[in-house]
Amino acid sequence: MPVTDLATDATLDRDTGDLRSRILTIAERLFREMGYRKTTVADIAACLRMSPGNVYRFFPSKKALNEAVAERLLRQIEAELGCIVADTGMSARERLRRFVLTMHAMSAGQFTANRRMHDMVEVAMAESWEVIHAHIGRVEELLVTLVAEGARNGEFRVSDPRAAARCVQTAVVRFCHPALIAQCADREQPTIEEMTDFLMTGLRAE
Amino acid sequence: MPVTDLATDATLDRDTGDLRSRILTIAERLFREMGYRKTTVADIAACLRMSPGNVYRFFPSKKALNEAVAERLLRQIEAELGCIVADTGMSARERLRRFVLTMHAMSAGQFTANRRMHDMVEVAMAESWEVIHAHIGRVEELLVTLVAEGARNGEFRVSDPRAAARCVQTAVVRFCHPALIAQCADREQPTIEEMTDFLMTGLRAE
Repeated sequence: MPVTDLATDATLDRDTGDLRSRILTIAERLFREMGYRKTTVADIAACLRMSPGNVYRFFPSKKALNEAVAERLLRQIEAELGCIVADTGMSARERLRRFVLTMHAMSAGQFTANRRMHDMVEVAMAESWEVIHAHIGRVEELLVTLVAEGARNGEFRVSDPRAAARCVQTAVVRFCHPALIAQCADREQPTIEEMTDFLMTGLRAE
Repeated sequence: MPVTDLATDATLDRDTGDLRSRILTIAERLFREMGYRKTTVADIAACLRMSPGNVYRFFPSKKALNEAVAERLLRQIEAELGCIVADTGMSARERLRRFVLTMHAMSAGQFTANRRMHDMVEVAMAESWEVIHAHIGRVEELLVTLVAEGARNGEFRVSDPRAAARCVQTAVVRFCHPALIAQCADREQPTIEEMTDFLMTGLRAE
């Protein structure tokens, strides 16, 4: 294949990626401002000055759009959590504390704080559970890495880091699951700090 | 007041209580068999061979019926949990284990196993949160009693039994909240036994 063709393909890929990403940015903004149910593909297309057909070329259904927006938001949370795990200048204990606090703050900020996001979340939970399931799996891997590191350096005394990481992840679901954050808004205790301290004891943190 | 009048009042109270209870039994059965949304007050009245007006005399709306059915089911869970806490022949550790397992099994059995119960639960979560909130509060009190006993007899080493009990209660929400039991059905780990062991460590159970 001549070099020029390769260059053209790369440009095309980049432009296609850019357009896909622009559609998602606008879709997320409209879901946030008008709510998922009230936003139509025509609204999104109009904001981008393109035809609805152009949006459908990338996202064949509104469900596909919702999934892609949800996945992008969840990937942002994972990116932050990944940075915390990778920051080996901090103790595993301190990183775990920040991990839990960040997961809570970002979930609350992205999915619960804005009431207009609730219907997007509800639809994602009902129709696109695989996207959420995959996110839970990736968060689990990050937590396993962190707990295993703490076990290796003697900060946590656990025999099975994966099992311990899963228990930590499950124990904080009330602070991360959008529906539970909303339902438990009037239950002030345990605070996330109390919960984190309790989990540290569960990990026999020294 | 003459004795006969007292007797009449007592009989009246008992009959009224019986009727209320019979309405609830039938309502629960129909919610289970047909689903909450498809069950009408007329269906319930027909099963009891009475007029819908008679049902409305006890429960002025379908929401009131849903609340009363939900509360009765939740009180059944609390009664079982109360028996476990009161069984001081067992160690606090063993009682806590049974407490968590029973809470999970009864929540799953009453609210999740039968798909027709899902809409009743959904409506209760959305419209009658106070009933659920009060139940959570009563379960908290039972757990506080149990953890405080374990702390007094040296089984659990916790400085604040209430704070510890709240952490345990929050940590097992994935195993008790009907929506989460359903959503996590494909996540086999942590098992409730792994979670309970982890919580024992959190309580520094000796």
